[in-house]
Amino acid sequence: MPRWNTVAIVGVGLIGGSVGLALRQRKLAHEIVGIGRRPASLDEALSGGCVTRTATSIARGVAGAQLVVVCTPVELIAQQVAEAAGCCGPETIITDAGSTKAQVVSAADAALLALENGESGGASFVGSHPLAGSDKAGCRHARADLLEGRVVVVTPTERSRAPAVEEIAAFWQALGARVVQMSPADHDAAIARTSHLPHLVAAALAAATPDDLLPLTATGWADTTRIAAGDPDLWRQIFLANAGHTLSALDDFERVLARLRSALEAGDGPQLAELLAEGKRRRDAVGS
Amino acid sequence: MPRWNTVAIVGVGLIGGSVGLALRQRKLAHEIVGIGRRPASLDEALSGGCVTRTATSIARGVAGAQLVVVCTPVELIAQQVAEAAGCCGPETIITDAGSTKAQVVSAADAALLALENGESGGASFVGSHPLAGSDKAGCRHARADLLEGRVVVVTPTERSRAPAVEEIAAFWQALGARVVQMSPADHDAAIARTSHLPHLVAAALAAATPDDLLPLTATGWADTTRIAAGDPDLWRQIFLANAGHTLSALDDFERVLARLRSALEAGDGPQLAELLAEGKRRRDAVGS
Repeated sequence: MPRWNTVAIVGVGLIGGSVGLALRQRKLAHEIVGIGRRPASLDEALSGGCVTRTATSIARGVAGAQLVVVCTPVELIAQQVAEAAGCCGPETIITDAGSTKAQVVSAADAALLALENGESGGASFVGSHPLAGSDKAGCRHARADLLEGRVVVVTPTERSRAPAVEEIAAFWQALGARVVQMSPADHDAAIARTSHLPHLVAAALAAATPDDLLPLTATGWADTTRIAAGDPDLWRQIFLANAGHTLSALDDFERVLARLRSALEAGDGPQLAELLAEGKRRRDAVGS
Repeated sequence: MPRWNTVAIVGVGLIGGSVGLALRQRKLAHEIVGIGRRPASLDEALSGGCVTRTATSIARGVAGAQLVVVCTPVELIAQQVAEAAGCCGPETIITDAGSTKAQVVSAADAALLALENGESGGASFVGSHPLAGSDKAGCRHARADLLEGRVVVVTPTERSRAPAVEEIAAFWQALGARVVQMSPADHDAAIARTSHLPHLVAAALAAATPDDLLPLTATGWADTTRIAAGDPDLWRQIFLANAGHTLSALDDFERVLARLRSALEAGDGPQLAELLAEGKRRRDAVGS
């Protein structure tokens, strides 16, 4: 007997498709509805086994779902959460998979409050961010094990209902992930440092490499710049939604880089080695 | 019939060990002598099949070798090339695997010239840099295929004898590598951008990440900082030997980063997307 009868996934790309595959493989849902605008993408999700049926409108797709997971670019999430909530009853819980949380969650909370005041809807929303991104996009790269052992940050607010928070945490755990709870603001400050800054730096490094030298790159350059292959439009949205924290992380990064520059300019070997050792210590702490 | 009777490898770490394994697997040398100071490392190289015999002194190890490959940290190379040359006749060709070339090659050339003026030696030297580094060190990580499909930069000077340059190019090609010839100065300018700057940036990024946020890192951070796990002392030597070009590469990187910062500060989405697309274009051109 599956845990959920119907789970609806809005946006069946890498994350949405992987959620669907994992739900199917783990037999956690009877029906998995893939919702999207482009029929070709939905056909791909269906034939790839990511979903059991599809819908091109949120209204039709979320009808009867106990759980709705919105896996679209961050600029679309709040509006789609509101749209889904308008078509669901109070028994439905909605979450998302956006890389930034403060703007998304406050806009979604506000939209849901407006619905309740208008006495329609009543669905719950709890924000999430699975730390399982990739430079690859699209459900053809989806994997049933994408979330296994990964961290998912769940970001409740004062408005969140405790049973809904528990259900969303249980949902990600059922897919094999480890759940960490943080406020949306704490999430954005932390992820600016662990994800958004690295993306900015990787993009700058790739863009600063002259074309004629690309044949002289090796695995070091390839690793360091890998995430720069990510979709510029998705990342534009993420950076704009988390500009303040990303700029603050960039300040910290530039302070460390300035110390490395000074050591290089001065030919100060011991200082250079000390800064490199500090980087190595943190990198070694994380492992491969 | 192997192509070389005896090849001596000074420093049997990741690169030296991989050269030895590849020579054995491809049956290119009758004897492969591993030379190092620490008997434990030499025993490991011998039992791992990287070499056929070992020596703790360069004088004993290089006797009778047609080819000597010096795979030690950059600060040791020139002196060890000179030491090897002093124990070899004019039929011996010496190369190295150092990540910087101008300082190494000019010091080695000067040492060989002094030997010739003293009427001893007469061995040839041609500098090399296999672009096959790793954050992993030691011959236990050596692989027979490490150089397959990789680029090796060979850096002849006016002093280099054409047959020696050809022989060294043929040596790396025999191990499966593609050879590119450049002057030592051109090499250092190029590799500052494709390898030394990425290392500096990766180290700064790792060092700028607060310890308490390390559990919130995912594959993006892990890829971008991977090379920061490299040996700080080896990299100190590389940076000091190529400080000028690395600083110039850092200038270029910081100019691109400043444009990203301005776009973020201004909330300028189109400019942000354009810079990200520029990074993606270069990253995509290189592939995985």
